Amino acid sequence: MESVNKKASKRSSIAIFQDMLGVSGTSRVGGSSGSRKQSLSMWNQFKSVDWAADAKKDWDSQKSYAVLGDEEDEKELVGVKALNEMGTWLIPAAVGVATAASGCFIELTVEWLSDLKMGYCPSSPLYTSRAECKDFVLWSNPYMCYVIIATLLAAISAFLTWAFAPMARGSGIPEIKTILGGFSFGQVLATNTLCVKIVGLSLSVASGLSCGKEGPLVHIACCWSSFICKFLPRYSSNEAKQRELLSCACAAGVAVAFGAPLGGVLFSLEEASTLFPNRTMLRAFFASSVAAITLSWLNPTGSGKLTMFEASYDTPPAGFEYVIFLLLGILGGCVGSVFIHYNVKVAKARGDGTTWRKYVHIILEVALIGCLTGVTSFPLYQTQVQSNVGIRAMFHSCEDTFLDRHSWMLDLCDPDDPTMPLVSWEIVKTLALAGFIRYVQMVFTFGTGAPAGLFIPSLYTGAAIGRITGILVTMFNTKYGWFARVSRHGVYSMIGAASVLGGVCRVTISLVVIMFELTDGIQMIVPFMVACLSAKWVGDCFTEGIYDYMIQVRKYPFLHEVTEDQRASTAQDVMDDTVDCIHPECGTIGSFMRFLRGARYGGYPLTVSQEDPMLCGYLNVSLVLDYLESEIEMNEAISDNTKVVFAKYLDRPAPADALDLSDLVDHTVHQCVPEQSCANLHSMFRNLGIKVVIITRRGKVVGLITKKSFINHMNDLHHHPPGTGAKEALLPK
Amino acid sequence: MESVNKKASKRSSIAIFQDMLGVSGTSRVGGSSGSRKQSLSMWNQFKSVDWAADAKKDWDSQKSYAVLGDEEDEKELVGVKALNEMGTWLIPAAVGVATAASGCFIELTVEWLSDLKMGYCPSSPLYTSRAECKDFVLWSNPYMCYVIIATLLAAISAFLTWAFAPMARGSGIPEIKTILGGFSFGQVLATNTLCVKIVGLSLSVASGLSCGKEGPLVHIACCWSSFICKFLPRYSSNEAKQRELLSCACAAGVAVAFGAPLGGVLFSLEEASTLFPNRTMLRAFFASSVAAITLSWLNPTGSGKLTMFEASYDTPPAGFEYVIFLLLGILGGCVGSVFIHYNVKVAKARGDGTTWRKYVHIILEVALIGCLTGVTSFPLYQTQVQSNVGIRAMFHSCEDTFLDRHSWMLDLCDPDDPTMPLVSWEIVKTLALAGFIRYVQMVFTFGTGAPAGLFIPSLYTGAAIGRITGILVTMFNTKYGWFARVSRHGVYSMIGAASVLGGVCRVTISLVVIMFELTDGIQMIVPFMVACLSAKWVGDCFTEGIYDYMIQVRKYPFLHEVTEDQRASTAQDVMDDTVDCIHPECGTIGSFMRFLRGARYGGYPLTVSQEDPMLCGYLNVSLVLDYLESEIEMNEAISDNTKVVFAKYLDRPAPADALDLSDLVDHTVHQCVPEQSCANLHSMFRNLGIKVVIITRRGKVVGLITKKSFINHMNDLHHHPPGTGAKEALLPK
Repeated sequence: MESVNKKASKRSSIAIFQDMLGVSGTSRVGGSSGSRKQSLSMWNQFKSVDWAADAKKDWDSQKSYAVLGDEEDEKELVGVKALNEMGTWLIPAAVGVATAASGCFIELTVEWLSDLKMGYCPSSPLYTSRAECKDFVLWSNPYMCYVIIATLLAAISAFLTWAFAPMARGSGIPEIKTILGGFSFGQVLATNTLCVKIVGLSLSVASGLSCGKEGPLVHIACCWSSFICKFLPRYSSNEAKQRELLSCACAAGVAVAFGAPLGGVLFSLEEASTLFPNRTMLRAFFASSVAAITLSWLNPTGSGKLTMFEASYDTPPAGFEYVIFLLLGILGGCVGSVFIHYNVKVAKARGDGTTWRKYVHIILEVALIGCLTGVTSFPLYQTQVQSNVGIRAMFHSCEDTFLDRHSWMLDLCDPDDPTMPLVSWEIVKTLALAGFIRYVQMVFTFGTGAPAGLFIPSLYTGAAIGRITGILVTMFNTKYGWFARVSRHGVYSMIGAASVLGGVCRVTISLVVIMFELTDGIQMIVPFMVACLSAKWVGDCFTEGIYDYMIQVRKYPFLHEVTEDQRASTAQDVMDDTVDCIHPECGTIGSFMRFLRGARYGGYPLTVSQEDPMLCGYLNVSLVLDYLESEIEMNEAISDNTKVVFAKYLDRPAPADALDLSDLVDHTVHQCVPEQSCANLHSMFRNLGIKVVIITRRGKVVGLITKKSFINHMNDLHHHPPGTGAKEALLPK
Repeated sequence: MESVNKKASKRSSIAIFQDMLGVSGTSRVGGSSGSRKQSLSMWNQFKSVDWAADAKKDWDSQKSYAVLGDEEDEKELVGVKALNEMGTWLIPAAVGVATAASGCFIELTVEWLSDLKMGYCPSSPLYTSRAECKDFVLWSNPYMCYVIIATLLAAISAFLTWAFAPMARGSGIPEIKTILGGFSFGQVLATNTLCVKIVGLSLSVASGLSCGKEGPLVHIACCWSSFICKFLPRYSSNEAKQRELLSCACAAGVAVAFGAPLGGVLFSLEEASTLFPNRTMLRAFFASSVAAITLSWLNPTGSGKLTMFEASYDTPPAGFEYVIFLLLGILGGCVGSVFIHYNVKVAKARGDGTTWRKYVHIILEVALIGCLTGVTSFPLYQTQVQSNVGIRAMFHSCEDTFLDRHSWMLDLCDPDDPTMPLVSWEIVKTLALAGFIRYVQMVFTFGTGAPAGLFIPSLYTGAAIGRITGILVTMFNTKYGWFARVSRHGVYSMIGAASVLGGVCRVTISLVVIMFELTDGIQMIVPFMVACLSAKWVGDCFTEGIYDYMIQVRKYPFLHEVTEDQRASTAQDVMDDTVDCIHPECGTIGSFMRFLRGARYGGYPLTVSQEDPMLCGYLNVSLVLDYLESEIEMNEAISDNTKVVFAKYLDRPAPADALDLSDLVDHTVHQCVPEQSCANLHSMFRNLGIKVVIITRRGKVVGLITKKSFINHMNDLHHHPPGTGAKEALLPK
């Protein structure tokens, strides 16, 4: 299958070359005989972003307001700078406010719709909280109504997504990660995606699907940031600047999702962003502060507090319990890996073009999942309620002195003495069943055609596992009296939740901070650390994290961190050594534009002449095309037959009537030698944010590597490490 | 003054060139007529680190254990890899344990010695806590004894530092930052520094000097990491690997200093480290977890809890209070800037070679400060006690129901009703005086000749300012009844402390996390964020942060983040355009070694010939020297008169008896064109971790920039921005 693809791409590249032959002023290096490999990128819909070039563009556009040295102009420049500086801070603030408002809207809608599954309020149908309604009427046939309404809500959510914004499905985090990694594609951040994601998410969460609103809120925040950018020329035309804002938006999204402003910044740093300088961190910090303040002012939960599942534990755990937490972490890593394994299997089985998809429309599929979720969730009280209510109950302890909260506890406390936890095999079985149901539901729900995140169901499963562990420890300790004191069950539950979430997402430090902010458990930092680190280690032995896996499964381009193995291969092994070059005299505008329009790459090296491939600079295709088109339109002296030259690079005077494009040449393009190791190339792409490196030997072009082709080769290498025939696979058959 | 330096350096470079003339096989590019500028580095004692080269070295040494493809060897390689992986995690753990043990030792010593200032315990002179001693006897003349013992302790601390480890003075954070930025110098991480810092720190903190143990603990952790590295060849020979461990050590240091494991990781990320990939973050996270667990097991405070000043506030502040917090943040930024301004003045006035230093020995200076600190601190109860006891009192509220803690509260509560705070002009005046005393003491203490940090005195000053604000708000509110409810004074105190510390250090997110972990105030995250961000903004308008300022004052090389202004200058403006090049035939071993021993740079470009400066590669001087020395020793056929060649780069066969050094050439050295902007060069140095870039035009060497000379030029540029004659200053007079 793969080799067929390679052959096809080879053929099309030859076809392009033949088209090119008619263009004078271009030539091919290494194409005639020495051609060994040439990778055509499979990612045509993705445009890669050049941070370095965009930063320069931004600087140039600011500088263009004023000529340095002129005092008047310099004053104006100061004004422009001050305005830009203000924007730098106001835009993240606006994103924070918009995200908090969306989060609040979703929270209230979910509360209203999810209660609708149980009954309705005749006196005020649009009540905001069930407690406010004095005459709440339960449906006469509760099970059936529950299932029907759940199915309906899920189906509407799927329909909206399918009809108006297919990119609004799922959590959106793999897409955001790809975008922050330096690629732009499609409708991920479009306004329709934003609207559908907000409404669809409310519906799918309210329907009781095993999903959360946390990941999608990150996506919503990013959509807001993109929406706001549209009105600001400085940002709308500059992809790198947009990405700075997206990093801030991610932080604001998590801040709203969990009421965890610090956790948001760290999530953006650890999981989402590729480039995250201190200045962006400060802005992210600001965005999430604003989001948190707005949220606490809007106060959707009515508690006036930010934290979702606030449960304060003051006593540090005993020594032996750290061992149990370690085991919980290991278990969490395994549970997470198993989830990823089966979820990917499910994703493959229902992908586009599969038998399943041929017979079952995606809306039907979501309705089916909604229906089955309703059927399986209703019988058990602990799964019938919304997942976050379940998690809140499991995180709390019956010993808590807040008596009014005992209604929360979902039968986890002793009915005779509600300040004591229930310790029995009965409750262990119930919790195990509840956790297992949510887990299986989650395997099918994540990745289906409705907006749905996986934080909440992961936390739910983990909380159940943790709570069971706590009950078991208490049971055995009562029987055998091994230890003087056992921590409350809520503590175990929190650790279990962190473990499973850590096993699924493989985030560590940001998860600890989020859990810590969620639960206000200052003494729990170290236990959380133990659990998250062990979950990550164990999980990493089996699979990658769910987001990285999804990036792979959906075939997005993404540059991971540098690995040691990359030192074994060099630029020579991965470069495209058949490179089309442009020369200073490159024919007429007409033929040149035809060549550029059929270009395989985003740009080409400019070399001295057909005979001498000495590198002069790099030409960005779209930049040149835009310039030529505007010249043809504006300048009457220019026709299709006008000659195009790069006068600065000619060794003789240019023809008088020729159009000189010297100013469009980027002579600062990065170059390196063929012996450069892939690890160094990798850090150039990742840390400098560039999108192309030209391979030269003694100044002469011998090859070219784009970020996309590099990622492609690295993925090949990753799946066929050296010694298993990977290198041979790169050679033409 | 500066121009004199420049002339001197110019002259010495000419002298070196004259020495060089005798060496055949080397030549100078641009040296004869076109020479415009050439910067000799002022930082000869600093060696810059090449991350990329060190990473390659590490990979090579691991690979050397096994030849790929051989099954036996591959098994061994797997074993080596597993061992390395284990070390990767065990070493940070060891650093964590050692740091926690040191912290515990310091804590106990300080407790014992500081009580000695008040009296002694005849029954058990080596008691660990004053509460344990039943017959504690106060000195008969308390004021005099207090001052004398304080002076003595300070003097001993200064003597130890002066005599055995001068690098142990101060906080050590500017030095650590420089080292993590990619330079190595002197005795900063030596074993004597470690020992003196531990003992000296205990003495200077116990003496009551206005200083804390937090910053120095970071230094101690780094010394431990360096000490442990000495026994592991993989680390001792690899500077880049050592820096990974140092980043982890920083985190462990803060974790022990504040009992704040998360804050430690973030401090290392935000303030200390230059390169901090996710993998290092994970290890730092592990190190600080281990440190925290060890600390809670050693339990030096006796509370069994990690947090230093635990004070839990559950009620979120009211809306209007955010405005007050913002004002506190602004005030904190100002107070911090004023501190930096005067501290730098003091530092300059007592630097080496000043009149002050000529007449006053550094030990005498510290004794004097110790004496004056004792004299000014004793009269006021709030300053007589150790600073951390004062901070704890101010952070707490009299309303706290822990009655046994009211002895802590240092007269801040109403004597008639200890559960109510004292609200009077009297206490406002006392607190203002106490804060001011500590502040002035801090200005003179930070930077003197004893180990001393500034976190604790900054927190103290800030806590006093905050507490005063709280009391004033209560007073006005009681009188005018503006607001329904005012937060407790402890809350204001914590915000004030965060503001001043933020104003001094300009850290934001890590400070919020540290404060949050210190005080267990979950509802306080957003208020802390408001205060820290405003303190940073305001402070940045006046001065840089204290650590960056110290790096400047002490003239350490450090590469800050990229700034926008750097886009205005190019490589051409900052490169050394008189470059000495080596050619493939470079004379006899004797003359070549003489040349290398007198080398100005750490390496030289290898070019095709005297006539053709086409770049072939780069030669690292010390690598070549080491190789040549070992060859002369080992190989009898080689004498001083043997010819040295780089056979691979010769266009004719090499002489039969010549020594071929081709394998020592690094052909993957980074190159760029003279038009490359300084901003891009900056990110190459900073983000790729390289130490030299060769400037080529069409493959031919035209200049060279080392990391040090780049920093030098950037500092010039920073102090004389374009248009003020900076560029002219770079040209020779």
